[in-house]
This record gives sequence, structure tokens and C-alpha cells, in this order.
Amino acid sequence: MPLPRLAVTAGEPAGIGPELLIRLAATPLAASLIAIADRHVLERAAARCGLHIELAEDDGSVQTERRRGTLRLRHTPLAVDEAPGLPDPRNARHVLDTLSEAADGCLAGRYDAVVTAPLQKSSINDAGIRFSGHTEFFAERAHSDVVMMLASPELRVALATTHLPLAAVPAAITGATLTRTLRIVHAELRSKFGIAEPRIAVLGLNPHAGEGGHLGREEIDTLIPALDALRDEGMKLLGPMPADTAFVPAQRRHYDAVLAMYHDQALPVLKSEAFDRTVNLTLGLPFIRTSVDHGTALDLAGTGQANPASLIAAAQMALELVAHRVTCSSSPPGGEARGEAPTSPGANQ
Amino acid sequence: MPLPRLAVTAGEPAGIGPELLIRLAATPLAASLIAIADRHVLERAAARCGLHIELAEDDGSVQTERRRGTLRLRHTPLAVDEAPGLPDPRNARHVLDTLSEAADGCLAGRYDAVVTAPLQKSSINDAGIRFSGHTEFFAERAHSDVVMMLASPELRVALATTHLPLAAVPAAITGATLTRTLRIVHAELRSKFGIAEPRIAVLGLNPHAGEGGHLGREEIDTLIPALDALRDEGMKLLGPMPADTAFVPAQRRHYDAVLAMYHDQALPVLKSEAFDRTVNLTLGLPFIRTSVDHGTALDLAGTGQANPASLIAAAQMALELVAHRVTCSSSPPGGEARGEAPTSPGANQ
Repeated sequence: MPLPRLAVTAGEPAGIGPELLIRLAATPLAASLIAIADRHVLERAAARCGLHIELAEDDGSVQTERRRGTLRLRHTPLAVDEAPGLPDPRNARHVLDTLSEAADGCLAGRYDAVVTAPLQKSSINDAGIRFSGHTEFFAERAHSDVVMMLASPELRVALATTHLPLAAVPAAITGATLTRTLRIVHAELRSKFGIAEPRIAVLGLNPHAGEGGHLGREEIDTLIPALDALRDEGMKLLGPMPADTAFVPAQRRHYDAVLAMYHDQALPVLKSEAFDRTVNLTLGLPFIRTSVDHGTALDLAGTGQANPASLIAAAQMALELVAHRVTCSSSPPGGEARGEAPTSPGANQ
Repeated sequence: MPLPRLAVTAGEPAGIGPELLIRLAATPLAASLIAIADRHVLERAAARCGLHIELAEDDGSVQTERRRGTLRLRHTPLAVDEAPGLPDPRNARHVLDTLSEAADGCLAGRYDAVVTAPLQKSSINDAGIRFSGHTEFFAERAHSDVVMMLASPELRVALATTHLPLAAVPAAITGATLTRTLRIVHAELRSKFGIAEPRIAVLGLNPHAGEGGHLGREEIDTLIPALDALRDEGMKLLGPMPADTAFVPAQRRHYDAVLAMYHDQALPVLKSEAFDRTVNLTLGLPFIRTSVDHGTALDLAGTGQANPASLIAAAQMALELVAHRVTCSSSPPGGEARGEAPTSPGANQ
């Protein structure tokens, strides 16, 4: 059977990303792994990990088998050699080049999904480039409206707002943003997760979901009307639910995903129970994108000691989503669901 | 050895409280359990649970042994017979009488601690009585400044704000409220939990604890100065910490308790991992008070099916705190630490 082609970006070359890619390559995974990175950065990272990795330039061909310790490469040259722990803004353009190749390659069907290692946002900004993060970059590149989801094997959480000061959250939750967000989450649970009738638990904004208006009126004024309108369209929505009891085991049986109103309402639950296994997904893109859920760990970079669990989990989740997508799609692999370009030699030229 | 004397209030007579008390009485616990309730309500609750409980009016004497299935009683008469599931505001005064007896008895040294079953706030309000909850009632009765803590065997969380609309949280977090709250938490971890040098992890208000001001300025303007001033006094404080990673196992080793800025920042973690074992404690009172962490479950009341796990956990935690307090106190049991009145016959008159 042809293996799915996963593009894996190395992120910040001075961070732990390159070493994580080497560890990923040493892991048994039923996928073609195509590193989008500088060849020499990966060679140096392998040496630091004490591992030998066989690097072969990607020719776009379909593999039916991958040996552990092998990695295909889409060589993307650095500007200056990396110094682990010390990001250099002169390499910012290189980092963005790897993201562009990943996005464009997915859009063109050269890759089935992209998995991203962490980058250093501040170093890109220091290069004078306006940049808010992977998620926004891919959304713009693909002209898509996106939603951030964090998922472990046990729990999927989408966020109505992401990196906002807490004081700005209530005003950011409107009927329009909720509706837009829920439509994306619902559509993606169907198309990427293969759930025919997704059940989404929507958390309240206020403690106890406002307790009938005693602890805030946003549930009554904004959330409930938006949810009811979507229910009328046939969407299966629970809530607004009190956040403190929404995650107890007896409740989890009733939903496929949670929509939290803000960052710290749900991520503490997810990370406390599945820190190494939490994956960041971007919903709403015309391709599959998963990511580690941690930073560049500059203090660990260069030691070969970084834990690859989250990158491995991200790659595994990408593979699951690829499998669901192929199952759900009416078109055969290589057809519409994979874009126009067949995954054959030369397709990545 | 003399058993600690735990006062247990039955809460709303039409809720699950009376049945929970019966289940607690049927549990082996090394304590004198003194129900503060109406005798007939308890008898009817026992019949619904299919249990026989031996009820004896409390004479204030010290027991050295308690047989399972026995309960001492401080009879506090109802106004009208309860109808399970249908709280009657005419019984509101009765419910408050049980709380007054519990508080006054603790203050006078007749009880070593009070454990509360859930009450129905709305029914008390419907009786025309201004009432916000157990915590506020006890604080006022004891003229104390209090802090709400939720605790499981694995995690203790104190709250800087409790039942506030989310939009009101940022303004409620001031240097003065943080300082007051941390002083109470610190003092109580020492005096009630027996932790000589408590380490408290303080969560940031904003996601990623504000990320150096990029995601909100409250950490820089309010939290850090307040924490630094308390550190100068010798208090061991961590943070402000990002809430999403503060609860991962590797972090928990570093603190004895967490101070969360608001309700839904921490309670989802606690309840998702230990729903039945989460206990509500009131810190800052001159006595020990623990409580179930759930409501009156009116739909279950009268069925005999309610799960007593949280009330049993609350009683066990009260016993642990009593044990620490006696250990820490330099005065013998019955002396200063237990108030003026000795726990002898007649002391509860």
C-alpha cells in the first residue's frame, strides 16, 4: 500500500526542532517522512543525538515501505549556520521558506499533510517580518478561516479565542464568531475525523455557565441564541456547559469535541492529563496540519536530550486524519482529495 | 483515644443531603459524627436508603469508638415536612439554624470541625433572606476574611476570585486582594495542613501568564509586584505561572497549593481528575470547615441513589485537618486550640 507523504518542517534551526526530526526519523511510522529543512542542520542534529540517519532528496515518488532511520529531504538552505540556543534573525526567511514549501506542497497535492516543529516567533519578528505564528501563516497562504484545536487521544478541544488578554475575551465572543467557529469545527470533525454526526460541547463563558444570568449574561444574550440557530440547522450541540464539570468522565461520553471560550478554560485540563500526547491542529485549512504543542526549548537545544513525544504524536494524528479523509472521500487516493497533482515522480518540481 | 467530634449539617432537606448523611453514618470513620438536622428527616432518608441507622441525641460526651450505622443528633426541627426534589422556602430558616449551630458550636469548642452537605441557595432567597452561600455565612458568623479552596488528595487549589462574571475578574485582581488572599492561604497551609514552609504556585491572569506583556499587562503591573513584596517577607511563591502547564505532573512536585485567579482556570482540572474526591474548604475561619463540592441534585433526591463519595471525602479531609491542628498546636486537645469550652457532657447546652 502506498504510504502517506508527510511533510515535516524543522522550525527554528537553533531550537530543538531539528533534533526532534531526527528522533522522529528513528521511530517506526508507516509514512513517507519528508523533512523540509537544511540538509546540514539535520546532519549536525543527528550527530548531537548520536544517531545515523539516511537522508535522500525527495523525488516525489510513492513509497510502500520506509526503513527506520531514513528520511526524505526537501533541502531548504539556511542563511547562516545555526548556534543551538541562539536563534539568528538572518535565518528567519529560511524558516518561512520551509512553511511556504509545506503549504504550497499540500495545496498542490505533493504532500498529504504537514507536521510542524516549533519555531521562534520573536526571531522572525526581530528580522523585521510581521508574523504571528504557524496557524495565521497557513491560514493566509491558503486563504482560509481557521480554528485552533488541541487534541489528545482522549479529548479534543477547539478554541473560540486563542492568544488574547483575558480582559479582551468577553467582547471577542459574538454570535458571528461563535457561528463561524462552530461551522468550521463541525465540518472538520466530519471531513477530517470521519465523524458523521459530530456532537460538540460548548462551554459557557462565565463560571457555572452564568447560572441563569446570576454570574454574567453572555450565555443568555449571545451563546444560547447562536447555539439554538445552529441546532435548527441540525447541528448536535451541548451547552453552554459549566466548564468545571464538562470534563468529568461521565460527561465525555456525550461529545466528540469541546469548544472552549478561551485558552485557560480548557488547555490546563488537556495538558495536565496528556502533556506529551497533546497535538495542535489547524482546522479549516484545505489540507491537514498538525503540530507539536510546545516551544523551541532553547535551553535544551543542542543537547540531543529533547523529548520527541509530542512530534511523534503530531505525526501519528496526521496519519489518522489522512486515513479518515481517504475513507470519507468518494474520490480515490491521488484524485480530487489529494489535489490535482498525482503523487508521482516529478510532481514536486 | 477520644474521637474528633465532627458536626455534619444535612443542608436542604428536600435535596440529597439527608440521604448522604445516612450513607456517611454507614461508613467506617474514626470520628464522632453529630448530625445537625431534623430527626424525622433523617429517619425518612434512612428508610429511602434501605438502611437502619441508630440515632442518639448528642450529649456532648467524648466517644472513643463509634459503631458503623450510628449517628449522634443535634435535633433541629423542620417547619414543614420535606418533599424530596421540591425545596420549600418555609424550611429556609431551619437550614440556617443548622449552620448557626455548627458555626457557634465550633467557635465554642463543642465540635472539632463542621462538614456541610449541599443547600439550595435559591430556596433561601425565595424566603426573602439575603444569603450568598455557606462560605459567606460562616465568614460573617466568625467575623473572618476567608478564601475558598478546592482540594483532592492530589491537588489543592485556592481561588483569588470565585463566583464572578468573567468580565469582572480582571478588575477584581488587585495587589491588595492578592496579598490578603496569599496571606490567608499561606497561614492556613501552615496551621491547618501542617506544612511548615508552604510553596504556593500563583497562576497568571492571562494566557501564557501574559507572555512578557504581549498578552496582557496585569502580570507586570499587579501580580509580579505583589508576589515580590511577599517573597521579601519570606513567602515561597512560584509564578506567575502559565495556567496551561502549571498542572503537569513535573510541575506539581514544586508546590503545595495553587492560587488560581478565577473559577474556570483551575476547577476543570481538579474536577476532571477527581470529581468524587474533590472537597471544598473554607480557609481563614477560626475553625475547620469542609464541604461536598456538588449541589442538591434535586432530580436524585428521594431515590436513595445519590453517591456519598464527596461527603465521605469531605469528612475524611476534616479529620486530617483536625489531626494536623492537634499536632501543630502547643496546647493539649481541649485547651486553647479547641476553644474555651471543654468537650464534656453539657458543653453543648
